[in-house]
Amino acid sequence: MDRIGVVDTMFARVDMGMDVLDELARRPGYGERFEVLRRTVPGFKDLAVEAKILIEKEGCGIVVALGMAGRAAIDQVCAHQASQGLMAARLMTSTHIIEVFVHENEVDSPEELSRVCSDRARKHARNAYWLLYEPQELTRRAGQGIRQGFADAGPLGA
Amino acid sequence: MDRIGVVDTMFARVDMGMDVLDELARRPGYGERFEVLRRTVPGFKDLAVEAKILIEKEGCGIVVALGMAGRAAIDQVCAHQASQGLMAARLMTSTHIIEVFVHENEVDSPEELSRVCSDRARKHARNAYWLLYEPQELTRRAGQGIRQGFADAGPLGA
Amino acid sequence: MDRIGVVDTMFARVDMGMDVLDELARRPGYGERFEVLRRTVPGFKDLAVEAKILIEKEGCGIVVALGMAGRAAIDQVCAHQASQGLMAARLMTSTHIIEVFVHENEVDSPEELSRVCSDRARKHARNAYWLLYEPQELTRRAGQGIRQGFADAGPLGA
Amino acid sequence: MDRIGVVDTMFARVDMGMDVLDELARRPGYGERFEVLRRTVPGFKDLAVEAKILIEKEGCGIVVALGMAGRAAIDQVCAHQASQGLMAARLMTSTHIIEVFVHENEVDSPEELSRVCSDRARKHARNAYWLLYEPQELTRRAGQGIRQGFADAGPLGA
Amino acid sequence: MDRIGVVDTMFARVDMGMDVLDELARRPGYGERFEVLRRTVPGFKDLAVEAKILIEKEGCGIVVALGMAGRAAIDQVCAHQASQGLMAARLMTSTHIIEVFVHENEVDSPEELSRVCSDRARKHARNAYWLLYEPQELTRRAGQGIRQGFADAGPLGA
Repeated sequence: MDRIGVVDTMFARVDMGMDVLDELARRPGYGERFEVLRRTVPGFKDLAVEAKILIEKEGCGIVVALGMAGRAAIDQVCAHQASQGLMAARLMTSTHIIEVFVHENEVDSPEELSRVCSDRARKHARNAYWLLYEPQELTRRAGQGIRQGFADAGPLGA
Repeated sequence: MDRIGVVDTMFARVDMGMDVLDELARRPGYGERFEVLRRTVPGFKDLAVEAKILIEKEGCGIVVALGMAGRAAIDQVCAHQASQGLMAARLMTSTHIIEVFVHENEVDSPEELSRVCSDRARKHARNAYWLLYEPQELTRRAGQGIRQGFADAGPLGA
Repeated sequence: MDRIGVVDTMFARVDMGMDVLDELARRPGYGERFEVLRRTVPGFKDLAVEAKILIEKEGCGIVVALGMAGRAAIDQVCAHQASQGLMAARLMTSTHIIEVFVHENEVDSPEELSRVCSDRARKHARNAYWLLYEPQELTRRAGQGIRQGFADAGPLGA
Repeated sequence: MDRIGVVDTMFARVDMGMDVLDELARRPGYGERFEVLRRTVPGFKDLAVEAKILIEKEGCGIVVALGMAGRAAIDQVCAHQASQGLMAARLMTSTHIIEVFVHENEVDSPEELSRVCSDRARKHARNAYWLLYEPQELTRRAGQGIRQGFADAGPLGA
Repeated sequence: MDRIGVVDTMFARVDMGMDVLDELARRPGYGERFEVLRRTVPGFKDLAVEAKILIEKEGCGIVVALGMAGRAAIDQVCAHQASQGLMAARLMTSTHIIEVFVHENEVDSPEELSRVCSDRARKHARNAYWLLYEPQELTRRAGQGIRQGFADAGPLGA
């Protein structure tokens, strides 16, 4: 059976991993064609190596990595490092790792932030599924200004 | 038959992949000496690993990677990460990957942005072809201030 | 016997390594299931390679790396490089390395800084232990806004 | 016969590659002990992989890589990426790659910029030759404030 | 016989390499247990690959890499790249490389800068020796606020 990995953090203030698990459970083939492995690490700098371990040692064909960045300036630097780590992990394994990062300063209210987290996590769970099983769904939307967390920007001038 | 890879994103608001496909289809040897493979990924951070997969698993001799950066500060950081990923993918595969990135804040109007996208995509498609089959065309233009997206800057003092 | 590595610096102004050693000594299995190796390097740019050596040559299954950044602007750049090194070391060894960095400018008084150092070091020692032996403890706290050095932020809206 | 590689770009507005070719042709052993291979790529982000190809596939013992950065803020970010790429290429091949980058904003007039380009290219061509055949020439100048493009800064306090 | 490598630059305005050579010559075992190899490169971006060559091809067990950054903004970016290169070289060789960088803007007068260079170079030469032969000297000073170039900061609150 194929495997999809999900890695999230204790640091994040929203349980986005649960959104991904729920979304993947609704995809065709769940439990038959593919199963889902979930791991939790302390913070988002720990995501990349855990994703690599899920790919190399647990045989995951793709991984969804979820993290949340705080409001301080240092949090932005750390998010940059975490993203660079995910990039390196992708390239070292030649495997897609979907980065789902939310920055606390993206929106103003906790309610809105919670909504962004859930929307972004669920849409990227769908993207991960498409990359694995239905790549034509991605190509159909090439250059269409598709977004996660917010409404689609749409094609330019539309 | 040789293969040229093209990777673009759902995030971009202009279908630059189509410009590249069209431009490559006009080159000598299309469909005979070389064919074109196209893939679409969610965002530009996913370009590098897909380019690497196209090179390693699909045998592409060169890849054109297309992305668009939004206007927010975080978009610039993400573009930097995406570019660093493409750099690493080039070096890990010893293969050229032509980066075609457009920043929404490069110009003011949607019309102009659309024109920049198309011009840059098409000229870089030509560059990819030259790198593969006519490297002397590049050397002839060494130090000539050649640009993509805008008019050539030309040689200094000219 | 399993091995947990601890690396710290002469540069830091608090002996966080000692906190980690003490905390690990209180975990179940200390001296029976696992032992602890400690190394000290000049500054935090030297942490990554020492952590890699502990993993590759000494067989450590996880490493806790401790450093302190000064108040100057250049110290922030150096901390960034040190963190990037730890990220690369993690990925090259497919092994978790828990980064415990404290910035002198996080708090105002020496007393508070000392408290942050000790709290962060001890909580991350616990995290390292969990990653190795009780990963379910981490997953139980997914998305709960867990912090080290300060009080937990808690889940959003709670 | 040994080989020295030279890579430059179409983007640059001065033909620095020609300066390097001319300077190397004046060195002892040219055409007998060593020959020179020249390649041109679209922009400076393409330099690193071409340098790596020249080393790995063409057997070059050293490479001179030439690029020019424009005046825009984004040009500085791209130059940073290009330099990081050259750094990675050096380390992956354990071979020296001499970076000759000129920033358009280093000086005011086109005439002065042209002079800087030529001076920097020629002096670094000489450095490449020294690294390969006369390393003692470099050691003799250790800590002497040697510059390329401008006059030497000289030793401190001198 | 063991080997310690020393790499410096023509760019630097102080001959820090000489300070390191002198300091190492005073250590026990010089010329019997270990010998010293010195190389000079053009600028600090060339240090990392030369250090890697000294480790891989000349068998150095540790390397001291010395560089000086000028006062311009671009010099800080270059120093960052040079440091990232040294980090990568450490990790690729699993060998310590002691970075001794001095920034011209650290102090005001040439006399003071010269003193900082010499002090930092000599103390790091000692650190390199300790890493190789007397690691317990480093551990004894863990968390003690040890500095090179300036007086020790000392432990917090002391």
